[in-house]
Amino acid sequence: MLKINPARLLDDLRHLRTFGATGPGVVRLSLSSVDMDARRWLAGRMNEAGLAATIDGVGTVFGRSRNAGPALLIGSHTDTQPTGGWLDGALGVIYGLEIARALAECETTRHFAVDVASWIDEEGTFSGFLGSRSFVGEAVDEALRHARNREGVLLGDALAQAGLIGAARVRIDRARHKAYPEPHIEQGGRLEAHGKSIGVVTTIVGIRELKLRLTGQRNHAGTTPMSIRRDAGAALVAFIARMDEAFRAIADADTVWTVGRIELDPGSFSVVPGAADMYLQFRDASAERLRAMEAALAALIRDFNAEGKIGVAMTDSEPPEAPVVMDAALQAHIAEAAEALAPGQWERMPSGASHDAQVIAHHVPACMLFVPSIGGVSHDFIEDTAESHIVLGCEVAARAAANILASLSA
Amino acid sequence: MLKINPARLLDDLRHLRTFGATGPGVVRLSLSSVDMDARRWLAGRMNEAGLAATIDGVGTVFGRSRNAGPALLIGSHTDTQPTGGWLDGALGVIYGLEIARALAECETTRHFAVDVASWIDEEGTFSGFLGSRSFVGEAVDEALRHARNREGVLLGDALAQAGLIGAARVRIDRARHKAYPEPHIEQGGRLEAHGKSIGVVTTIVGIRELKLRLTGQRNHAGTTPMSIRRDAGAALVAFIARMDEAFRAIADADTVWTVGRIELDPGSFSVVPGAADMYLQFRDASAERLRAMEAALAALIRDFNAEGKIGVAMTDSEPPEAPVVMDAALQAHIAEAAEALAPGQWERMPSGASHDAQVIAHHVPACMLFVPSIGGVSHDFIEDTAESHIVLGCEVAARAAANILASLSA
Repeated sequence: MLKINPARLLDDLRHLRTFGATGPGVVRLSLSSVDMDARRWLAGRMNEAGLAATIDGVGTVFGRSRNAGPALLIGSHTDTQPTGGWLDGALGVIYGLEIARALAECETTRHFAVDVASWIDEEGTFSGFLGSRSFVGEAVDEALRHARNREGVLLGDALAQAGLIGAARVRIDRARHKAYPEPHIEQGGRLEAHGKSIGVVTTIVGIRELKLRLTGQRNHAGTTPMSIRRDAGAALVAFIARMDEAFRAIADADTVWTVGRIELDPGSFSVVPGAADMYLQFRDASAERLRAMEAALAALIRDFNAEGKIGVAMTDSEPPEAPVVMDAALQAHIAEAAEALAPGQWERMPSGASHDAQVIAHHVPACMLFVPSIGGVSHDFIEDTAESHIVLGCEVAARAAANILASLSA
Repeated sequence: MLKINPARLLDDLRHLRTFGATGPGVVRLSLSSVDMDARRWLAGRMNEAGLAATIDGVGTVFGRSRNAGPALLIGSHTDTQPTGGWLDGALGVIYGLEIARALAECETTRHFAVDVASWIDEEGTFSGFLGSRSFVGEAVDEALRHARNREGVLLGDALAQAGLIGAARVRIDRARHKAYPEPHIEQGGRLEAHGKSIGVVTTIVGIRELKLRLTGQRNHAGTTPMSIRRDAGAALVAFIARMDEAFRAIADADTVWTVGRIELDPGSFSVVPGAADMYLQFRDASAERLRAMEAALAALIRDFNAEGKIGVAMTDSEPPEAPVVMDAALQAHIAEAAEALAPGQWERMPSGASHDAQVIAHHVPACMLFVPSIGGVSHDFIEDTAESHIVLGCEVAARAAANILASLSA
């Protein structure tokens, strides 16, 4: 009978938390010395679990099962944001480790292969998703040569400092790796709001990030009548209001859009702003809806420019990220396990955040399992998940893993 | 017959422009070495005009007529903004000098007394209106002890550097100074838009400067559904829209309000802003209307706070400046002179900008005469006024000055 060991799971999560612990949170930036300490500890725990562990040439910790494939690949990331929570990606990595151990301890599953990964730099301290991108064979040479962290340290120098220059890079084995279920905390408040314990991810949303600049005429705020102003700041407020209206007409309940930054030039009390900049991001699970939002935005920009008083220019900040649909069969396995262990306490949902699974899904069938985040908080020291949810999530993931492996062997 | 000398007027303005000339503009910050060079040159020109010139203990250049009072006080300021225009306050100072000369050259007016001033630091490099405030006896000791410029230089050190420590401070002589007509460029586009050549100022508008902070909840921009967000940036946009509506209902054609700065915290693509700050300024000639705008703002803040989702807090940035009404008799004199020399080409108007006249008006009857600014531009290198308007403005000011002095002597 397959059984995870909750005490061992929680002990490992708590031990991992000690690397970079800062109050209730964790600061464990990719390739920092505490991050490397954590990686070495993790590799040791993988070896103790019977996996063959390595830290590869970009810093990914990879524990390869000694069993023959087909293999399940389970993992996530143990690096954190500058103000990170203790679970975030760590949860999925330790779930993978615990599932590998649990399967090995069970008569009926001990022949199954589970390879466990902690992908380097999911959080983009140097270059987002570096580990998973390297693993699937995406080009990362540019990042290896030029990427820097906030302090200006080159990725290459950080890898040298970590002693990883010359280490082999782990690569996908298409004959072996047949499914990638990634467990993660939800990072939002949806499961909590709905009173659910498990989320089965249907899609990782697509993201558009755009910078807009409105240009008017800088003027004296005392001597320029309202009627003749070309106030770029006032125009931006009007623009956002009209954009909100257009987006609301297109959105469904899961569509999100955010104006994260506004800057008025020159930014003083006494000057009518001559230019106004905004950062705009929108996310949705539907590529079609993202295109409709882009079209609405383009139409609004045309309207403003046609009026002639204020110029609007838009530039992409990041290349668009398309929505990534999770594998239906894998979703079904997770849903079956959730219904078996927590009847009625799970739901399907999109992932509003990005994850390594969106990189790997282009090469291996992938899916995700979420556990609730207390108060919907993440990327914050106070991020947490109820212990009962941590344990339940691993039980569901282990059951799903066994069933997926059974179906692969069949 | 009273006649100004247009060539001499323009030559002096052009010579003054050479001190700090930067392209077509001027950079002549208070007490800088070019500013002091300009003050010494100006004092020399005043002496040549028969005035007794001094540079006082705060840097004001004061040319006292050798004639007995009652005297007219004419002046403005020769310091500039960091990106200043060549006319701005310089126009009024050189008008004063030229009027003193013209009156002295005319048989019927040579006994009239005109004292000419270039008040230090109208632009607030160290402390706004320092010269006029010192002149009328306002407390400036705090500024003398603690005021600094942008580079952190103490006002006291700058005065020492300029060799002014120990110099007497010029003070108002209430028995002598009976009227203060201040000529200035308009700094706005109203005269140009109306096809007029002279503005007779009715009121210097009052100003309110306020900082507002809206507080919501910082959140992940991907995982936080729109329905549960407490987005301080989105709330700010809604707040400004409602404020605009409320202000439009109160405003007349001359009321102005400006959101000059917006900052969202933390200001990135992927984070729902937890706080939003704005700078708000509004100006009007009517104290009652300013109070109505304040009341509308307070009501809006109460509404937002009552909804409970977003907190709004407001702080004064600067003490409120009350509107200052210009002396009616002096306005009539300027209007008479304008109608005589440019029939139908003048209009009454408020001053949307602040001027030394608002300080002096509390002690001596004051008024202002404006000449048009090309394109309404000021505080910019390209600020300019048509030569014909520069000359006409001085002719009108000279005629008004003679008539005011005649009425004072009568």
